[in-house]
Amino acid sequence: MKSRRAAVVGASGYSGEELVRLLLRHPHFELTTVTSRQSAGQTIAQVFPKFAHIPAARELRFTEPKAEDIAHSAEVVFLALPHGLATEFALPLLDRGCQIIDLSADFRLRSAAVYQEFYAHAHPAPEWLPKAVYGLPEVYRDQIRQAQLIASPGCYPTSILLPTLPLARAGLIQPDQIIADSLSGVSGAGRKAEIDYLFCECNESLRPYGVPKHRHLSEIEEQLSLAAGMSVTIQFTPHLIPVNRGILTTLYLAPATNAHGPNATAFADQVAACYHAAYDHEPFVRLLKEKALPDTKNVVGTNVLELAWRVDPRTGRLIVMSAEDNVIKGAGGQAVQSANILCGFPETAGLI
Amino acid sequence: MKSRRAAVVGASGYSGEELVRLLLRHPHFELTTVTSRQSAGQTIAQVFPKFAHIPAARELRFTEPKAEDIAHSAEVVFLALPHGLATEFALPLLDRGCQIIDLSADFRLRSAAVYQEFYAHAHPAPEWLPKAVYGLPEVYRDQIRQAQLIASPGCYPTSILLPTLPLARAGLIQPDQIIADSLSGVSGAGRKAEIDYLFCECNESLRPYGVPKHRHLSEIEEQLSLAAGMSVTIQFTPHLIPVNRGILTTLYLAPATNAHGPNATAFADQVAACYHAAYDHEPFVRLLKEKALPDTKNVVGTNVLELAWRVDPRTGRLIVMSAEDNVIKGAGGQAVQSANILCGFPETAGLI
Amino acid sequence: MKSRRAAVVGASGYSGEELVRLLLRHPHFELTTVTSRQSAGQTIAQVFPKFAHIPAARELRFTEPKAEDIAHSAEVVFLALPHGLATEFALPLLDRGCQIIDLSADFRLRSAAVYQEFYAHAHPAPEWLPKAVYGLPEVYRDQIRQAQLIASPGCYPTSILLPTLPLARAGLIQPDQIIADSLSGVSGAGRKAEIDYLFCECNESLRPYGVPKHRHLSEIEEQLSLAAGMSVTIQFTPHLIPVNRGILTTLYLAPATNAHGPNATAFADQVAACYHAAYDHEPFVRLLKEKALPDTKNVVGTNVLELAWRVDPRTGRLIVMSAEDNVIKGAGGQAVQSANILCGFPETAGLI
Amino acid sequence: MKSRRAAVVGASGYSGEELVRLLLRHPHFELTTVTSRQSAGQTIAQVFPKFAHIPAARELRFTEPKAEDIAHSAEVVFLALPHGLATEFALPLLDRGCQIIDLSADFRLRSAAVYQEFYAHAHPAPEWLPKAVYGLPEVYRDQIRQAQLIASPGCYPTSILLPTLPLARAGLIQPDQIIADSLSGVSGAGRKAEIDYLFCECNESLRPYGVPKHRHLSEIEEQLSLAAGMSVTIQFTPHLIPVNRGILTTLYLAPATNAHGPNATAFADQVAACYHAAYDHEPFVRLLKEKALPDTKNVVGTNVLELAWRVDPRTGRLIVMSAEDNVIKGAGGQAVQSANILCGFPETAGLI
Repeated sequence: MKSRRAAVVGASGYSGEELVRLLLRHPHFELTTVTSRQSAGQTIAQVFPKFAHIPAARELRFTEPKAEDIAHSAEVVFLALPHGLATEFALPLLDRGCQIIDLSADFRLRSAAVYQEFYAHAHPAPEWLPKAVYGLPEVYRDQIRQAQLIASPGCYPTSILLPTLPLARAGLIQPDQIIADSLSGVSGAGRKAEIDYLFCECNESLRPYGVPKHRHLSEIEEQLSLAAGMSVTIQFTPHLIPVNRGILTTLYLAPATNAHGPNATAFADQVAACYHAAYDHEPFVRLLKEKALPDTKNVVGTNVLELAWRVDPRTGRLIVMSAEDNVIKGAGGQAVQSANILCGFPETAGLI
Repeated sequence: MKSRRAAVVGASGYSGEELVRLLLRHPHFELTTVTSRQSAGQTIAQVFPKFAHIPAARELRFTEPKAEDIAHSAEVVFLALPHGLATEFALPLLDRGCQIIDLSADFRLRSAAVYQEFYAHAHPAPEWLPKAVYGLPEVYRDQIRQAQLIASPGCYPTSILLPTLPLARAGLIQPDQIIADSLSGVSGAGRKAEIDYLFCECNESLRPYGVPKHRHLSEIEEQLSLAAGMSVTIQFTPHLIPVNRGILTTLYLAPATNAHGPNATAFADQVAACYHAAYDHEPFVRLLKEKALPDTKNVVGTNVLELAWRVDPRTGRLIVMSAEDNVIKGAGGQAVQSANILCGFPETAGLI
Repeated sequence: MKSRRAAVVGASGYSGEELVRLLLRHPHFELTTVTSRQSAGQTIAQVFPKFAHIPAARELRFTEPKAEDIAHSAEVVFLALPHGLATEFALPLLDRGCQIIDLSADFRLRSAAVYQEFYAHAHPAPEWLPKAVYGLPEVYRDQIRQAQLIASPGCYPTSILLPTLPLARAGLIQPDQIIADSLSGVSGAGRKAEIDYLFCECNESLRPYGVPKHRHLSEIEEQLSLAAGMSVTIQFTPHLIPVNRGILTTLYLAPATNAHGPNATAFADQVAACYHAAYDHEPFVRLLKEKALPDTKNVVGTNVLELAWRVDPRTGRLIVMSAEDNVIKGAGGQAVQSANILCGFPETAGLI
Repeated sequence: MKSRRAAVVGASGYSGEELVRLLLRHPHFELTTVTSRQSAGQTIAQVFPKFAHIPAARELRFTEPKAEDIAHSAEVVFLALPHGLATEFALPLLDRGCQIIDLSADFRLRSAAVYQEFYAHAHPAPEWLPKAVYGLPEVYRDQIRQAQLIASPGCYPTSILLPTLPLARAGLIQPDQIIADSLSGVSGAGRKAEIDYLFCECNESLRPYGVPKHRHLSEIEEQLSLAAGMSVTIQFTPHLIPVNRGILTTLYLAPATNAHGPNATAFADQVAACYHAAYDHEPFVRLLKEKALPDTKNVVGTNVLELAWRVDPRTGRLIVMSAEDNVIKGAGGQAVQSANILCGFPETAGLI
């Protein structure tokens, strides 16, 4: 199988680091370029000592991020840049014909109006919004295959959309009654020198934040609206939890039909059928059996999202729980999964 | 102020240990008796080295738990025993005239039928259920003053009831639409030698459990039903989180009136008025101001429950968040608070 | 007992916060002044929500740090300031007759030359060095009673000096063969927004630092030299460990006499006699018995230092291990202990 | 390259689990057999949900451990069994011609007398002691190639021997003056349901244990004695630290020549030359450069041991620090490294 040359732009954060790790071991991508203003000139091994035993990490040096150089050295470019800066790099690279997997939020929305509502300024390249593909392979696999610009989903959105989209599409739940309660490890905040994320401020601490309107709501609601065929507003509460990695999301859902008491079992069967149809053949979605419930320690370090559900006969509600590694299935791993599809590689290449 | 002699029965678990700590420093209780089968004969300092600098801890020895001896040496008895065993000790102590603060679930329900539903056997002393007082001082202060048997609330129930009871009593929320999502530190599982609670199984792990029907639901629902004047069923999902102590509860509540969009502010004002009326004079409930949200690290080590709320104009829902130390306000501290009331001591004695 | 008015200057770090906590509950000190440039105007309760249930914390407001105001409002001033800045505040306060307990390293050395060697600049007030008393109550209790300026020891020095000074004074060990291996929780690094101390950089990480010449060596070596009556150089390796609080020090010591094989027991008896003579009556040094070894979780939250020792008959070495809370016995608690002595209060006041 | 069939006997502990993970992805070993009394009949995916996305994990079932069956289905057998039990399985498998990599301590010593001293009973198969090869590839690569029985080193010994053996062989240090201070994550204690290893007992705790005579001393001292050509006794103190994985060892060494003051640099150069000669071509030993010091977070998840050293001109001592993943380079990874050598596979196969 032919290989492709890949670049990671902005490789000094947690997501960029994970991308570098995955691409260094990938059987079909050749990592030719890693950029970072602050690390230019140093090898990967110097910046990330933990990769120093991988021969390529001792050879490849970080460079200054220049679109022209990047376009020369890579066909596939992963952007691990802050919001806003991603667009600045994406546009000249797209012009030069690169295929882009953008891990920022810049191109995740189809609607420039929603973008303006949540980000408080006009989108700088609205002409690309309809052309960008939302990089959730379980949903947009066919579109990803032909995309030039893939907007890789956020970590919270992935943990919420994979459990809810099949149910919304099948009409099994009331899409405007979704409540998502999410717990995230501290890597979700990025590698930023802020007091709030110091060890002593996070350890032995449990706290909600961004209540009630988090920016990631916009992409979650847009995707759910598309699936449900109606405008959907959801409830979402993120919490910061003292683990390095992992997101655990608990969803409280209202069945479209009566699922109280004796009806619970039949509804649970419908949910099970829906999930099995959607995910039995997916390599990175694991439907848990019998009494098992998701646990982030079973997915951290992998590209897998774990999923379990219960119908509560006492309340008639559907409870769905998901677990993922926020830096892999929620960021770098999912981006590589999309890139595999884009390049015609086996979808699991470098991810198992 | 006259002092009372106090006993802690079953002092080797986390709640018992906290009771011992609080009573050793208490200005009005004299800790005369601590019992534990496995530690009988040893001093408190030997069993809990961390208390060895407190002179009384070097004097007082654990004894075998015998009702007759306990009744001789203490007027006030705290029971920190497993479910079921608490009743065995409570009955003879009650007969001998002791005042009992029971930290188990044995006497928390008024209804023997609900007890049987959740615990799968008949209550062994149903005649005491109507006489026991639910030891939530913010709600039952007057009854606690005259009680002989106080059933101290569970840690999850405290974190859910203090935020919801005032709203339910005031008719501000739909009591049958309550969703409680709770995160608990590992001390909540007790000091038990089980694989599931080993360091390596809990650290870097986030997991729900007991979905969808946890035993503590029974006391939560009974108290909410009393407050709402109707039979209430709620949704409750506990999660195990890698911290030693602390419970963070996020509540998703449905306002009794329309709180969408422009109505959100007015409803938020009603909620604020309700909470201020209920808790402004409470020494151990802290209503957070402005942008502050609860954080367990601000309550761990104290008897305080932190409370904040938001009305989401996009969904019309009320989000309420609480934080407490599960071993203090959720167990030993609340028990001492009740005992202070019972004995006519200042309610905050030994707790600030 | 008459009370004294106390001030904490620079109360926004971890040590300052702990001082505030201890003084808010102290039976004889009245905390009248807390200063912090960044928090001026706010109440203690606003800056440290965890103290908001203490009535005085809701009254007292942070002020700008001005020596004149501080001297008006307090007789006893605790300085919790960075190295260098402490001297700037100490001098005008000393001139105004305040009693100073300085938690910085500014006045811990008697020798201005050693200061210059370790800090690479001349001491700004060398005339105060001989007058300052090293605030280790177990060693300098009498001098503390009459001091105007107390230099409270560092956290590492406390954990090393309390175990070694009695042995050095008694001539039981070779003072120039001391090896101290210390593990410290992350609070030891202070509340600084640096990447190195982010949760994800510290959690699941064990690392030495400052090898081989740490600044704290200067005060350790000076005190040991005084005790041994000879110039002492020691080996010291600090490590950063993912806990919030606590220092665990393991000392490798060379007995002054042969302690190999059958001689080990006799030497162990001498060590035991030395420690019992030094510490049996000390309220904050706990000599562990039989098989017990120090564990930071038994001292965190207290002003206690735990101590245990073993003579290894195979190597003839003496191993001594100590545990303390770096923010209490290693900082704020020890400062209050000294202040109690200085003011004629019971030494344990506010600390048990 | 031809592949070999491999078995893991006793695969339910942390080391066994890691072996399974490594072998499931190994390019040349085919994992055909995993045994565990308690898990017999279940697939790997059921026992270890975190491997469920690997196709082979969903196929292979645990079986009862029977030597005859194991010998039929595998040429190479990894024993991840408790001390003592390993011998019971090793003997019949050796008789049947299997190649054994034993992760227990059963065959690590050459001397049956030392075994008896440390384990308090006679070795059950002393005839195998001289034939077993100590599986430290950096030292015994040639012998491993021809071994039938490999005794894979313990986690502490690996972290101590790799830094000290080259120095001892070169005569650069005084071999009888070695002090090793080690910090270990809790996985080192195994997956055992004991109170001491509960989350709440380990989290926020730092503690030494097994002072002064730990069983692992025997293999460390035997190997050092062989390298130094004299009988060596060392000082070793292990500590239990709240991380899942990782060992950080700090070694205090006495140079064979004067390394004080101006001599320090020349001695440091000799040490550097020694280490570079020993390890520059080793794929799994990383010599750190310039100011870098070992950090377990840079080796966890890999088979790498990190190494750095400093000569202290003030004391004339050599400080060497190492970091490794106790479950990989200290157990399963090192075992696979040896097995690669044994089978003529690339030594890094499945480990990078």
